[in-house]
Amino acid sequence: MAKDMFLLWASGSPPCWRIMIALEEKNLQGYQHKLLSMAKGEHKSKETLDINPRGQVPAFRHGTNVINESGAACMYLENQFKSQGNPLIPSAQAEQALVYQRTFEAFNAHQKMVDVIMYTFRVPAEEKHEATEKRLKETATTEFKTWEGHLEKTGPYIAGKNFSMADVVFFPTLALAFRLGMSQKRYPNLGVYHGFLKDRPSIKATWPPHWTQEPPMKDPPLKDL
Amino acid sequence: MAKDMFLLWASGSPPCWRIMIALEEKNLQGYQHKLLSMAKGEHKSKETLDINPRGQVPAFRHGTNVINESGAACMYLENQFKSQGNPLIPSAQAEQALVYQRTFEAFNAHQKMVDVIMYTFRVPAEEKHEATEKRLKETATTEFKTWEGHLEKTGPYIAGKNFSMADVVFFPTLALAFRLGMSQKRYPNLGVYHGFLKDRPSIKATWPPHWTQEPPMKDPPLKDL
Repeated sequence: MAKDMFLLWASGSPPCWRIMIALEEKNLQGYQHKLLSMAKGEHKSKETLDINPRGQVPAFRHGTNVINESGAACMYLENQFKSQGNPLIPSAQAEQALVYQRTFEAFNAHQKMVDVIMYTFRVPAEEKHEATEKRLKETATTEFKTWEGHLEKTGPYIAGKNFSMADVVFFPTLALAFRLGMSQKRYPNLGVYHGFLKDRPSIKATWPPHWTQEPPMKDPPLKDL
Repeated sequence: MAKDMFLLWASGSPPCWRIMIALEEKNLQGYQHKLLSMAKGEHKSKETLDINPRGQVPAFRHGTNVINESGAACMYLENQFKSQGNPLIPSAQAEQALVYQRTFEAFNAHQKMVDVIMYTFRVPAEEKHEATEKRLKETATTEFKTWEGHLEKTGPYIAGKNFSMADVVFFPTLALAFRLGMSQKRYPNLGVYHGFLKDRPSIKATWPPHWTQEPPMKDPPLKDL
C-alpha cells in the first residue's frame, strides 16, 4: 500500500519528520523516499519542484495526490487509514477537542521557534537589533513555558493519556529546540516527555540521521531559551 | 444544539471569522457569542482568560470543551457535525487531499500577511528597516500570486469545484488583505473569487460589522501588495 507513496525530505526538518512519524504510526512502512541535502540546494531541483512548486521539503505524493503541507499530509493519512495502525485523532468528543487544540497550537509554537532561528541565521547583520532578538526569544520562551504547563495539566502525552496527532506535530519541534540549545533544565516536564518519547518506535525509526552522526553546533541559536 | 456553544470574538479577526463561517456552514446558528473590543483590551479580561489563557480571541467553548485555535475549532465542528449542514472536508481521496493541502497552505498565507501588518504597526520605529519591510511585502505578494495561480488551476473555489474548509480558512485572510489595501487589480482571479464568495449566506451573515460601518483606513498597510 505504501509503495505508491513518495517523500522528499531533509534530516532534522520538523515538517518532514512529522510526516515520517505519521507514516510509521499508521503502519505505512515501505514508502519510497529520498533524503535531500539542503546545503546542496536539492530542494530547488526539478525533482522537488515537480512535486512541490514552492521548492520546499517535505514534498509528498500518494499516487497522484500531492500533499506538501505537513499538517495536511498528517491529517490526510489519519483520515485515509483510520483503522490502520494507531489512531491519531480520537473520536470521543472531549479527547478530540483537546487533540485538535494542541495540534494547532503546536504549529504556532513551531513558528515562534523558527522566528528565533531565522532571525539568527537569515536576517542581515545590518538589519538586526538586540531589542528585536530579545523580544523574539522571550516570545519563544513564554511559548515553551506554556507547554511545560500543558504537560502538568494534561500529560503524560502532549494532549492527554494517549499518543496522538498533537505529539506527531509537537515532538519534532521540541526535539529540534533541545538540539539547538534550549535548556532541558528550565523545562523539566518537557525534558521528561522528550526522554520517554524518543524511544517510541515511530520516533526512533525516523530520528534525524545527522543528529546521531554529528555533534550539536557550537553557540546554538536557542541557548538563551 | 448550538446553545451550548459560546464564542468570544472580535470584528475583522480572520481566526474568529473562520469559526463563525464554519458554524453557519454546519447549521449551528443560535450559538451564544459576544463581540469584544480589542481597543478596550477586553481580550485580556477575566471572561476571556477563563476560556483562553493566552488572552486572545477567538475563545470558543462547546459544553466543557475549549477549542481556541481557529483551525482546531473548524476541524472539530466538521468532525462532530459531519452529516449536518455542508460537508467541509470531502471523503473522496483526491478531493480530500487538495482540501487539506489548501487549508494548511492558507494558514501560512495568513501568517505572511500578518507579518507585514505587525511590522507596520507593532515594531518600534527605531528597529525598522526599509529592506526588512520590502522583503516582508515581497514575500506576501509572492504568496498571494501563488493563490492567484491556484484559482487558475483548481477554481472556482479555492480547492476545487466545491466550497470547503479551505475557503473557510482562506477567505477571511483574503478579505482582510483587500480591506487593508491590497490591490484587486493586481489579483484579478482573487478579486472574482472574493466577489462571488462575499454573497454566500455563511459569509454575508458573519461579515465584520465594523467594515460596513466604518470607511477603510487611510494609508493602509497592504497598499503595496
